[in-house]
Amino acid sequence: MNQIKGGVTAPKGFRAAGEAAGIKPGSTKRDCALIVSDAPATVAGTFTANVVKAAPVHWCRNICAVGSARAIFANSGNANACTGKQGDDDVSATAKAVGKALGLPYKEICVCSTGVIGVPMPMDRLTQGVTACAQSLAQDGGAAAAEAIMTTDTVPKEISVEVPMIKGTARIGAIAKGSGMIAPGMATMLCFITTDVAIAAQPLQRLLRQAVDRSFNRMCVDNDMSTNDTVLVLANGESGIPTLGPGSSAYAAFGSALASVCEEMAKTLVRDGEGATKFVEIQVSGADSNEDALAVARSVATSQLCKTAFFGQDPNWGRLACAAGYAGVEFDPNRLAIRLDDVQVFDGGMPTAYEEKDAAAAMRKPEFVVALDLGGGPGSAVFWTSDLSHDYVTINADYRT
Amino acid sequence: MNQIKGGVTAPKGFRAAGEAAGIKPGSTKRDCALIVSDAPATVAGTFTANVVKAAPVHWCRNICAVGSARAIFANSGNANACTGKQGDDDVSATAKAVGKALGLPYKEICVCSTGVIGVPMPMDRLTQGVTACAQSLAQDGGAAAAEAIMTTDTVPKEISVEVPMIKGTARIGAIAKGSGMIAPGMATMLCFITTDVAIAAQPLQRLLRQAVDRSFNRMCVDNDMSTNDTVLVLANGESGIPTLGPGSSAYAAFGSALASVCEEMAKTLVRDGEGATKFVEIQVSGADSNEDALAVARSVATSQLCKTAFFGQDPNWGRLACAAGYAGVEFDPNRLAIRLDDVQVFDGGMPTAYEEKDAAAAMRKPEFVVALDLGGGPGSAVFWTSDLSHDYVTINADYRT
Repeated sequence: MNQIKGGVTAPKGFRAAGEAAGIKPGSTKRDCALIVSDAPATVAGTFTANVVKAAPVHWCRNICAVGSARAIFANSGNANACTGKQGDDDVSATAKAVGKALGLPYKEICVCSTGVIGVPMPMDRLTQGVTACAQSLAQDGGAAAAEAIMTTDTVPKEISVEVPMIKGTARIGAIAKGSGMIAPGMATMLCFITTDVAIAAQPLQRLLRQAVDRSFNRMCVDNDMSTNDTVLVLANGESGIPTLGPGSSAYAAFGSALASVCEEMAKTLVRDGEGATKFVEIQVSGADSNEDALAVARSVATSQLCKTAFFGQDPNWGRLACAAGYAGVEFDPNRLAIRLDDVQVFDGGMPTAYEEKDAAAAMRKPEFVVALDLGGGPGSAVFWTSDLSHDYVTINADYRT
Repeated sequence: MNQIKGGVTAPKGFRAAGEAAGIKPGSTKRDCALIVSDAPATVAGTFTANVVKAAPVHWCRNICAVGSARAIFANSGNANACTGKQGDDDVSATAKAVGKALGLPYKEICVCSTGVIGVPMPMDRLTQGVTACAQSLAQDGGAAAAEAIMTTDTVPKEISVEVPMIKGTARIGAIAKGSGMIAPGMATMLCFITTDVAIAAQPLQRLLRQAVDRSFNRMCVDNDMSTNDTVLVLANGESGIPTLGPGSSAYAAFGSALASVCEEMAKTLVRDGEGATKFVEIQVSGADSNEDALAVARSVATSQLCKTAFFGQDPNWGRLACAAGYAGVEFDPNRLAIRLDDVQVFDGGMPTAYEEKDAAAAMRKPEFVVALDLGGGPGSAVFWTSDLSHDYVTINADYRT
């Protein structure tokens, strides 16, 4: 698997665009993105588990249930969440406008939104955005689309790879946004993935679910789950590689590459987390099961006290042991061991005779590993998190005011 | 029920002391507390659910399993957590020192600690603290004891009440400490309650469990559960009121008063939360069950985004709706209503036409109510929380360094 250029337009048969429509009053930044497959494509998606779902989430879930899509239209600046029946009507009107502009059935147009919530979508400006995107669709439009879905992100996020297969080369491209649950208070993680392999909707959904479970579901900035979170993948078969069937080595190779792409995008989101100054990989081993390990990793990764210690560059094994201890997982605290990068700071339930300066040096790095060994079974898990900084508080205390 | 003065020494037959022993090197503040019942007393306790438990927690749990105690000795400045077998030995040595100084069996001496973890207890200085406390025990020593258990608390925390009963007056006193999980990363919520009613250990344990479930288990500053959290109640019967038996009205009256005392202490802890500038009562109604309501209230109360919005005085109903939505509780988002004090900001799943200035005015107050009505069944719950401020980050990022 090699990285290549192009983002979502790297796979064959995809075009994209990003245009400015002024969705957020007064803004002149790109805020409308369009990704189109030139050929019919299968689609799969994963969505927020929040009971409070934005209107576009319901729309995309219905499309994924059928399994065919030709395009994804997304806007930033307005999340179309908590907008009642009007919100649903606006989503289908948007899909119809895109379908008309492209000459495609509107029920194959995915629609996604991110931004402020509780505000009706400015449909006049959004429709202008649809028209502008349809006109500027290009084979090198991936970067513009990546830019158009940004909210408080400080950098656009895209990746593309090629995967050598026995009968040709598959490509996967992705763009994503999200650096916290922003805009007033929730906003969104969005990730759009394109690929030119041929694969039926159901196995594609299965591979996406696996990839998301090992990537976006293993990261956090602030642990607040948005109303709009959406990951979509379109597969259009334009690579010419025969259809990937479950059980084949090509299917496995594609699934593995898809998981890698999702993992890279998830890490990119954490690195650009709101106010983040650190990227921390939490590794848990020695648990009775992978589920137990994941619970401990999540507990440490989401602890406010651990995250402020990361920000303070404080080798505070006490907070790490404590957060592990309240994860709801049984383990023998007298066998607990903790490592900060390669510095063993805790072993057998007690601090080691480590050098404070070595531990502090590990944490001064912008990226480091926190490894917890529970001293039990073979279960393990990895989780990515950021620190909790003054900037996080500033960004989120002052967002609307 | 009337408030009276005296804290833990308000009930008859209790004396207390608080002395400085320099547990934390260089400190001259009071750091050793002793509470003694002049007569034999029953004891009940609730303890941290953290798998990683400090040595004193194991000690006190064993005493509560038997049900008889005469004294509580507590120190701040060192949590005696993650200290291995030495930690256990130090606890029993402390109990023996107290027992010897008071002429009481050491297995009836509760020992509690709070402060830095992973550091062996300085037993020479602690023993001096035991001696000093035993010498200065006094009927008005409650305030000194309250002061001695403080760590990052900005105010000592005590309360005492008298409860008129048919056959006399019962008194309950309490002291508590805790303003976050401090000292490197965990430290402690401690609450010691005294009462002069006569009640067997088992019903006392039941009443305490109920009181704690409705008070300390319904508050949060940062949602990190410490290794040392302990609530103890001693009942010595010195009021002369006949023994309270389950089912009697006196038993119910005492249980209710005990719950009120715990609730007041819990609120006091939240008000003094690390960096807290706001005290927020989360009220949830219209849930299918009280458990569901509690889960939603806890989700809102612990959301970093909601807590930063409280700090920013931002009437951000979006974050409130979002945190309710990911609580793991099913409800119809189209029936959700949200109120900030008396300003209805959200109804029927959408924002109302409220005046922004009214909502902002509610949140500028140091204490306010956030009420969420899920629009379903009769389940309800209350939870108390603070805001997430710059000072919280400063306090916790810089604690050890």
